Formats: sequence, structure tokens, C-alpha cells
Amino acid sequence: MKQSQFFIPTLKEAPKDEESINAKLLIRAGFIDKLMAGVYTILPLGFMVLKKIENIIREEMIKADANELLMPVLHPKENWQKTGRWDLYDTLFKFASFYSKTELALGPTHEEIITPLVKKFNFSYKNFPFSVFQIQTKFRDEKRAKSGILRGREFLMKDLYSFHKNENDLEKYYEKMKTHYKNIFNKCGIGKKTYLTFASGGTFSKYSHEFQTVSEAGEDKIFLCEKCRIAVNNEIINEQNICPKCGNKNLTEKKAIEVGNIFPLKTKFSNAFELKFKDENGGEKDIIMGCYGIGLTRLMGAIVEALSDERGIVWPLTVAPFKVHLLVLGKDKKVKNEADKVYKKFLDAGAEILYDDRDEKTAGEKFAEADLIGIPYRVVVSEKTIKARKVEVKEREKKEGKLITVNEFLKKIN
Amino acid sequence: MKQSQFFIPTLKEAPKDEESINAKLLIRAGFIDKLMAGVYTILPLGFMVLKKIENIIREEMIKADANELLMPVLHPKENWQKTGRWDLYDTLFKFASFYSKTELALGPTHEEIITPLVKKFNFSYKNFPFSVFQIQTKFRDEKRAKSGILRGREFLMKDLYSFHKNENDLEKYYEKMKTHYKNIFNKCGIGKKTYLTFASGGTFSKYSHEFQTVSEAGEDKIFLCEKCRIAVNNEIINEQNICPKCGNKNLTEKKAIEVGNIFPLKTKFSNAFELKFKDENGGEKDIIMGCYGIGLTRLMGAIVEALSDERGIVWPLTVAPFKVHLLVLGKDKKVKNEADKVYKKFLDAGAEILYDDRDEKTAGEKFAEADLIGIPYRVVVSEKTIKARKVEVKEREKKEGKLITVNEFLKKIN
Repeated sequence: MKQSQFFIPTLKEAPKDEESINAKLLIRAGFIDKLMAGVYTILPLGFMVLKKIENIIREEMIKADANELLMPVLHPKENWQKTGRWDLYDTLFKFASFYSKTELALGPTHEEIITPLVKKFNFSYKNFPFSVFQIQTKFRDEKRAKSGILRGREFLMKDLYSFHKNENDLEKYYEKMKTHYKNIFNKCGIGKKTYLTFASGGTFSKYSHEFQTVSEAGEDKIFLCEKCRIAVNNEIINEQNICPKCGNKNLTEKKAIEVGNIFPLKTKFSNAFELKFKDENGGEKDIIMGCYGIGLTRLMGAIVEALSDERGIVWPLTVAPFKVHLLVLGKDKKVKNEADKVYKKFLDAGAEILYDDRDEKTAGEKFAEADLIGIPYRVVVSEKTIKARKVEVKEREKKEGKLITVNEFLKKIN
Repeated sequence: MKQSQFFIPTLKEAPKDEESINAKLLIRAGFIDKLMAGVYTILPLGFMVLKKIENIIREEMIKADANELLMPVLHPKENWQKTGRWDLYDTLFKFASFYSKTELALGPTHEEIITPLVKKFNFSYKNFPFSVFQIQTKFRDEKRAKSGILRGREFLMKDLYSFHKNENDLEKYYEKMKTHYKNIFNKCGIGKKTYLTFASGGTFSKYSHEFQTVSEAGEDKIFLCEKCRIAVNNEIINEQNICPKCGNKNLTEKKAIEVGNIFPLKTKFSNAFELKFKDENGGEKDIIMGCYGIGLTRLMGAIVEALSDERGIVWPLTVAPFKVHLLVLGKDKKVKNEADKVYKKFLDAGAEILYDDRDEKTAGEKFAEADLIGIPYRVVVSEKTIKARKVEVKEREKKEGKLITVNEFLKKIN
């Protein structure tokens, strides 16, 4: 993709109305744009990152045998009244249709929709475990939206709901999902900073679990057991300030971003909607449920918070919008021609490449923008590199580049 | 995919609260579920169809050099006031945040967002033509929602916006987009029934254009010139009842579904937001815009309306959820084993296959459901086919099947 033809509205200065690192960097580097507090446009560069995150998540959810569907954003009031959450869910956007006067909510989560929906399946004991998921825009009327895309009024989320014939069936599925979640955060490059965190399970089970990525920007406090590499959250620490696995009392306090959560719902929602199944003897039993969320836009923000440096974003290869950022230095025709050839060679090799072909930018401006955008490999074509019949390759995290031939480099990254 | 493990809640009878063929068939066959008037869940089978439609559309939009992005659903009131449409747009969902009291709209279209957004690009004359698109959920507070997914209160849409330095630049892009739209409707299997239709261009240009698919279910009247294979819509016929291409007065009245539209916006929105560019001499000029929409859910409904028969849906290969529907008849272990082998053979060959492995259904029920769901090739394994060392393959539109070996059939479809 030629940068001259790509919509990347970068800024020289950080936007003044943003406090968080993720919003400052993502706006400056042209990945997102702020429409109003807590509401952002995902610009083309950001869209490419989100698609990669989406595919990583989808792949793992399909491995967990879940069917993908798409539930509505508009929810009828009745469904939320049945669970008592019409009045209790404090960030629910509520309004009415002008014509039909129907009272509606904008979906912040979908237990109120999926539970009566799967009832139409007429479950028998043979159908379990059963699970569905969606990747969809969610809405919350947040009182304060000041953490960039970590806490939006509108955000992308993957939500999965699982259905079970007994607690054992739920537990098995729940444990499997922990592994899929670990795979996702590993693939997104934040595995080492992300901890399985024990949280309160409400009235229905002893624990639920969060996945927390350690970062200064985090809104949550977690208490880490270095030995077990697990943590407990704020709620749990008040009840028992020990590691639930090894009993260790020396827990380290850290700030962290919740990038995912898994929650045993037990029969809370199946009771509200009378969701039952026929057991082996033809009797009716309650279906047991679990739910599993990951905020995609929040995850993108967490990656930025966890992996940026003073020069800009440092994308992991797996979710970077492009793998290679080609820069041509100077307006000399010979240099430009050579860079065009190198660009074509990368394209022919199927490399994901952004080509900074802009005449009006100085070398310094191009270098600074490349660091800000954070593509893993920067490849420079200049008079110097042409003389050496090579290109200069610099990894985003390194300070110095190396001269290498295009073919050698292509071999390395393919 | 094994049908026993897939969420397809089919119904024996058509739902009584639906009038339209698309909703009746899609609900009965387990592609969609109605949450309330004009609001539907896209079930797993329907989701697979929508993903195929989405990919066909995305491919053509990328060929048109458009950058993909994702704009918000929540729109601030100010943007809609600037164009005067806060009060004039009659299906705009409007409400306020409970906490911040900010007045908001749910986006039914995105001119009010994209125009101030691209202003941040600081266009020069070198940047044109420039275009962006998104595939996103849109909202309209429809007075009457009775046409199934042809007219939803919530629906999926592709909207593309193009930006130009002069009318000639717009016209060239606009003509190119007509070809991309034709490609899309051809690929979706409704090309022969879909006509470029001249519509009123409002105050800004003589014509805009709709793509209309002929169908009894259509809400629009079009007037077709058989010779030119183009049509004019209701607005135009009142001004001039002749073919705008050849002058022919013998136009045939038809009912049709609008599956797409392209519209020269000229400077309506750029004026409202003062969107200008620097020309060759450094002077400021108005940017000229075009917009181009396709409703994905509506397109899915139009395909069903245009291609169904009395037994059910008839999906074209290109958008069918699966290409092959394998049915095993009877509960005999030998037959089941053979069908399992055939299923594995298809999977190994990479075929998109749904396998009706359910014990509790009779042969008659399986045949009826297969016709209802409408997958292009039905493949039957039974005692009879095993004796012949073949399988029975029937195309959805044909009445009779043929015996053929699995290998021969795989060669044919791969």
C-alpha cells in the first residue's frame, strides 16, 4: 500500500483532550479518530490491526466448537425486565422509538437475548456442551470515558455463551476456554504480561476469572503470585490475601488492564427465561451457562499500553497493520525508481508492506512517523543503500539498522 | 459441519407474524430469528451467507481503491444540525445519555461523520480520487417494518464515500463504481434480474442510480426498457416516461427491490462542513463527493425473494452457506459408517459441507429440510447407493438425482 494513497492522518503533537497513552499514540499515529468522549472511528490502519485481532480470536473460538452468529444491538425492554437488569444495569443506554413508542436498550452484553433464543433449539441431553459467539459493537453509557479505547461508550467485543447439562460439563468447557484465552493473548504479543486473575464469582460460584495485562494505565489493582504466575483481584484480596493455588502470602500489587473475562453464570439466566433440557429419562432440568468476553478495541489499546516506547507504538508481528514499512529517502529519481522496484519485489513475494513514497516529507519526518506507527521492520532505500546494492533494515525495537539484500531479508521474514 | 452439532432451529410451519417470503423462509430454515419488528438475529447459517456476501462486496470495493474503516454508531447532535438533517431525517433514532445528557443519534448513514473526518487529511489536488468504505450496522426508526430483512430497524450496510477535485473526477469514479456494483450482483447470482435504474438526483445532479432486482416482494415500481436493459424509477417516470438511453416509450412496469444505490452528492456535505482542498495554484476549492450504498441483509433477503421456489430457498453456489448437503438415510450402522467415510472424504478435499447425521429425523423430514435450507448439492448415502458403490447427487433446482462416485463428484465441484 502506498502511503500517499492511504488515509493516515498523523499528528505532530499529541491531542490535548486525551489523558491515556493508548488514545494519544493511536490518534497521533493515525489509527483512530475521536468523534466524542468514549466514541472513536477506527481508521484504516487501526482497522487492519482489529481485523488481525478478530481473526486470532475467531480461530480460537472455532477451535472451541462455537457457532458464530450476530445478535441485534437493539434490545426490547421486556427481556431486561425478566432478569431485573432493566433497572439494575447502570450503564444501559435506554430510549424509545419515536413511532412505535417501544422502549429499547442498546446491548452492552447479550445474556438477555441469547438465553430465550437458544430455547428455540429444544435441547436434549445429547446437545451439550453447546456454545455460540459473536464479534459485535457493544454500548455502555459510561459516566467517565477517559481511558481512550480501554473504556469506550461504544466498543467491539467478542462474547461467547456456553450451555451445559451439569456443572461438570461447564467446568470442563470453562477450563478449555482458559487455554484458548491464553493462546489469544500469547498470539497478540502480550502473553508474558497477562495473568489469569481470580475474581469474585458472585452468588453462583466461588470464582470467576479475569485476564489482566500489567500496565501503568490499568484501572484495576491485581495481587500477583510470582511463583504460580496467577493473580487475585481487589475483591478477592479483601476476603483472603493469599495465592489461591499455593497459599503464598507475599503477593505483589500491580496495576493492570482487564483484557478478558470468563464467568460461570450457572442458572441465573436460564432460570429467568426457563431454559431447560430433556435429560436421559425424559425429565426437565435447568441448563447451566457460562459466558466469556474479550473487548477487541480494549485489547488493541492494551497492546499499545503494554508495548509502546517513547518514540511510539511497537506492534507485535502478529497484529501489526503491515509487517514491513518501506521508506524512500530524497526526491532523486534514481533512488525513487529503485525504491519502486524494491516495493514491487515485496508485493510479488506477498509481503504486507506500507510504502512511504511521499515526496513532501523529509527523511527525519519519515523516520519519526515510522517509529510512531510502529511497524515491525523498517526498510530504507537511499543513495547509500543503492551504492551497497542492499537495503537498510531496522527492527522497531532496535536503535541501529543493518544493510542486507532484499532477497536475504525476504527469506528471513517469509 | 455435523448438523447434530450446529444451531439450525428449523420450523415445520411458517411463522404467523411475518408477511414477507424472505422472513418466512429464512426463519423456517433457521437462517434468522426475529427479536422484534424489524430486528433480527443472524443465526449461524445466515451468518455464513452474510460473510460470503460481505467478502464479495469487500473485494470489489478494494478494487475501487477504497480504504476500509469503521465509523461509530453513536453520532453527536451537532454534526446532524450542521446539515439540517437532525430535524429533517425522519427515521433518525434520537436519544440522550443519562449521565452526560449529550444528545445522540444512531447512524442511519455517515455523511455527517465522514465529511468532518476526512477534513483532517488536509487534501491537496494530488490526493484525488479518494474513497473510504465501511461494512457496519445501521439504524432506522421505520414506521412500519413488515418486509422481513428487506427493511429492518437495524441492518448491515456497506457505505462508500468518494471525494473529488472536480465533476469529471467524480463522473469517472462513479462510472467505475457502476461496473463494480454489476460485478457484485452478478457474483451474488441475481445479475440477470437486477437493473441499473435511473432515479432523481435531487437538486445537485440530473440522475442518481439505483440497482433494482425484479421481484413480487419489491416495494418500488420500476419501468423497464427491455432493449437497453435499464430502467427508470417512479420519480423519473412522472417527469419523462421514456428510456433515457434510447428514447423508447414502451416501458414495462415491474415491482422491484432496491439492492443498491449510487448518488452524486456534489458539494452538499462539503459545503456544510467546509471541506476544501488546495488546488495546483494554492487556492482553496470545494471538494465534490459521491456516496454508494448496498444493504447486506437486504441483499440476502432479495436473493431469497428472487431465487426461492415452493419447497424453499435456492442459494447460488457463490453465497450458499455450504456447497454440499450430505444426508444419511436410516439408522443402520453400516450405512452410518459409510456416510461418515464420505463426510471425511469431502472434508479432506476441502469441500464446504453440512452433514445431516441426525438419527431422530426420517428420510422424508431430511429431504424436506434440505430443500428448505437450499444448499446447491444434496448428496445422499443410503443402502441403495452403497450397493451401487456410489452416492446420489441432486442439484437443488432439479427434481431427480443421479448416482455418481464420490471422486467423480469431487472432481466436478473442485
